[in-house]
Amino acid sequence: MDGGRALTIEQQRKILERGVEEILPAGELEPLLRIAQSENRPLRVKLGIDPTASDIHLGFAVVLRKLRQFQDLGHTACLVIGDFTASIGDPSGRSKTRPVLSRAEIERNVHSYEQQLYRILDPDRTEISYNGDWLAEMRFADVIQLASQYTAARMLERDDFAKRIEDQQPVYIHETLYPLCQGQDSVQIRADIELGGSDQKFNNLVGRDLQRNAGQRPQLVMLMPLLVGTDGVEKMSKSLDNYIGIDEPPEEQFGKAMSIPDEQIAAYLELATDAPPEEIEAARGAQNPMAAKTALAKRVAALYHGREAAERAAEHFASTVRRREAPDEMPELNAAPLIEDNGKNKGVWIVKLIAAAGFAESNSAARRLIQQGAVSIDGERITDANAHVSPADGAVLKAGKRRFARLVMK
Amino acid sequence: MDGGRALTIEQQRKILERGVEEILPAGELEPLLRIAQSENRPLRVKLGIDPTASDIHLGFAVVLRKLRQFQDLGHTACLVIGDFTASIGDPSGRSKTRPVLSRAEIERNVHSYEQQLYRILDPDRTEISYNGDWLAEMRFADVIQLASQYTAARMLERDDFAKRIEDQQPVYIHETLYPLCQGQDSVQIRADIELGGSDQKFNNLVGRDLQRNAGQRPQLVMLMPLLVGTDGVEKMSKSLDNYIGIDEPPEEQFGKAMSIPDEQIAAYLELATDAPPEEIEAARGAQNPMAAKTALAKRVAALYHGREAAERAAEHFASTVRRREAPDEMPELNAAPLIEDNGKNKGVWIVKLIAAAGFAESNSAARRLIQQGAVSIDGERITDANAHVSPADGAVLKAGKRRFARLVMK
Repeated sequence: MDGGRALTIEQQRKILERGVEEILPAGELEPLLRIAQSENRPLRVKLGIDPTASDIHLGFAVVLRKLRQFQDLGHTACLVIGDFTASIGDPSGRSKTRPVLSRAEIERNVHSYEQQLYRILDPDRTEISYNGDWLAEMRFADVIQLASQYTAARMLERDDFAKRIEDQQPVYIHETLYPLCQGQDSVQIRADIELGGSDQKFNNLVGRDLQRNAGQRPQLVMLMPLLVGTDGVEKMSKSLDNYIGIDEPPEEQFGKAMSIPDEQIAAYLELATDAPPEEIEAARGAQNPMAAKTALAKRVAALYHGREAAERAAEHFASTVRRREAPDEMPELNAAPLIEDNGKNKGVWIVKLIAAAGFAESNSAARRLIQQGAVSIDGERITDANAHVSPADGAVLKAGKRRFARLVMK
Repeated sequence: MDGGRALTIEQQRKILERGVEEILPAGELEPLLRIAQSENRPLRVKLGIDPTASDIHLGFAVVLRKLRQFQDLGHTACLVIGDFTASIGDPSGRSKTRPVLSRAEIERNVHSYEQQLYRILDPDRTEISYNGDWLAEMRFADVIQLASQYTAARMLERDDFAKRIEDQQPVYIHETLYPLCQGQDSVQIRADIELGGSDQKFNNLVGRDLQRNAGQRPQLVMLMPLLVGTDGVEKMSKSLDNYIGIDEPPEEQFGKAMSIPDEQIAAYLELATDAPPEEIEAARGAQNPMAAKTALAKRVAALYHGREAAERAAEHFASTVRRREAPDEMPELNAAPLIEDNGKNKGVWIVKLIAAAGFAESNSAARRLIQQGAVSIDGERITDANAHVSPADGAVLKAGKRRFARLVMK
C-alpha cells in the first residue's frame, strides 16, 4: 500500500475511474479503497486471460493499463489464466476460435505472453494462477452444486445468448457453464475487483453472485470501453487482423495507427495513450485530423518504444509513403500562399489545392475527386471536400493513380 | 433366449406391445426382436429406479410387469439405481421430494426394495447397477463434453420445463443436466430398450441421442400409460398417499381398490391386473360397477397374495363395512322378488329398492336421494338412479345417515 500513500482516497478514486465505462455497483469504489486502507492490505484485482491469444494489442492494453494504475497505488493484479476451457476447446465444434491446447502449449504461450504483460504490468505486484488448478478437479457433483446457483432463464439473458436464441442459432448447454467457471475463479482467488472489457459485464456479475453465495464480499466490477480496431468497425482483435500489437516495432505501430479512420482518433487517444484531456478534446472534430493522427501514432509508438523511436517511426512513415507511392520526379507546388488563417479556417482548403495543382478543371470537379476518395496527402486519404489541411513541407499530394505534386510549404 | 422359443417374433411383439402407450420409433420393436434372435443374445431392457422410494405401488408395477414380460421372453432387465442424484439431492433446495441420501442409506433402501422387485421380476434375468459408479467419477471436462451434446433450447422444450418457464418459475441450470445423466446411463449400460412411464418420454429420448453420438444403436423407447391414483385425479405416488403398495396386506389392497372412482375400473384392470380383454371391455360403462370393482379388487389382491387370500380380503371388507357403519339390529328386506332379468336390465333397480325399503315416499324422491349421494350398499355409494344392482345376501342398504336395511337375496 506504499504506492498510493501520497494521494487521498478521493484522488485515487479519480485516477482509477478515468476512462472507465461502468462500475457496478456504482459508487462502491471509494468505500472499497477505504476498506483496503483500514485493513492495511492491497486489493485483489482480478483479470481473466485467454491463453489462446499470443499477442497483446492496444485493445487489451486498455484493461492492462487500468490494472497497472491499481498496482501503482499498491494493489495486487491477480491474473487468472483460463487454461481450463482452452484445454477442452469447444466440444460442440461450433467455435472455430477456441482451439484445444495442451497444458504445455498453454504454458509456453503464457510464458511468451508474460514478457509482453510486463511491458505494462509491474511483475512485483502480479499473481498468476491457472483456473485448471481448481476447475479440472471438480467432479460432476461439484458442477451440479455450481450450476444450481443460476437459472437457465437468467443465463440465457446474456446478450450474445439472447441474440443467438432470437436468431434461432443454438446455445449449447455446456456454454451456459462457462460463465459459471469464470465466476468460480473469482470465488477461488477471492477477488475484490474484477476488471474487463464492457462485453464481460454479464460474466463478471456472475462472479458477484457466486461470491455472495460462498459467503464472500461480492467483487466490484469495473468495465473498460472496447477499442475499435484499425478498420474502424469491429472490436480490435487478432483474428480480425485489425489490431496494433504492443510488441510490434514502432514503425508498424505508427503505420497502423495512421490507418485508423479520423472518427476514432479521440477514442484511441483516450483509451490507448496517456494524452491529457485537453488534447483528446482538441482531437474531437479537429480541423486537421492528419496532424492529430500523426500525434496519436507518435504517442502509441512512444508508449511502447520511447519518444526517440517514435520520432524515427514518423519520419520512416513519411518517407516510405513518399517512396512507395510517388515517382522520383514530380512537379512542385508552392502551397504556402494558399494558407488561410482566419477565425473560421486554418490551413489550405483541399479543393483549392487540387485546383491549383491542375488536377481538376473546376472547384466542383475537385470536390468530386475528393468525395470519390481519389485524393491523398502523404498517403492519408482526404474525403471531406471542406477540409483544410496543413501538410508537411515536401509532402506528396496525389490525385487518382498517376497525378502527383510535391508541396512546398514555406 | 429360451423363454420365447415357442412363440414367433410376431406373437412376441403382440405380447410386448399390449398396454403400451407409445413406442419410439414406432414399428421398430419387431426388427429389434429379430436382431436379438439373429445375434442369439438377450436384449438389454433398461429401467431407471429412484432409490428414494421405499414402496413399489401398482403404478410403478405397470412398468415392472412389462419388464417381466421381456424377461419371460428371455431378455435381461437392466435396473439402473439413480443413486448419483439421490446422493446430491437438490442443491437449489427447491425440490422437497429429493432428500439427500448416503450410499449406505441408498443400499439399505434398495435391499428392502429388491424383495418387492422380485415379487414381479425374475432375479435370474435381472442386472442391477448404480449410476453413481460412472457419474460420480466424471470430471468437469467430462460434464462439458456431455453438456455439449444438447442445446439449451431443446432441453427447455421438455414439458415440465416449458410449463415452469411459461409460469415464470425458475429452471436451474443443474436441472438441465439431470436428463443428460439419465441418457448417459443408457450409453453406459448399452441399453437396447428403455422402459418408462409416459412422463419419461423426453428423458428417454435424450438417451437415444447420446447413444447415437457414442456410436451405439439408439435404444427403443417404450412408454407405459400412467396409472391414476386411488383419488382418481393425480398420478399414483407415495407422496400423495393415493397408492396401493404391492407389499401391502391383501385386506389393505382390497379396501383401497374398492375406493377408486368407477371411471377408473377399466384402466386399473388393464394396467394393474392380468384381466382378459373381454373383462376390461365389459367393465367399461358396466351397469353394475360395484361388481366390476369387487372383481378388480380381488384380482389385485390375488396377483400379490394368491386367490385364497383375495377371497378372504373380500369377505373381510364386506363384514368390516357392515360392522363399521350399520347398527346391530335393523329391518330385513327381501329383495329377491324385485330382481329383473330381461334383455335390458339385470338385478334390482336401485330406485325400486329404496322405495320398497320405505326410505322414500315416491320413485322421484328415491331418485333425488340417490343423486344426492345419500345411498349406499355395503358402503359402496350409488349415484346413478338408473343403476341395477346385485347385492350379496345380507348386504346392508343405507340411505342418509340413519336408515338401514339388511337385504335378503334368496
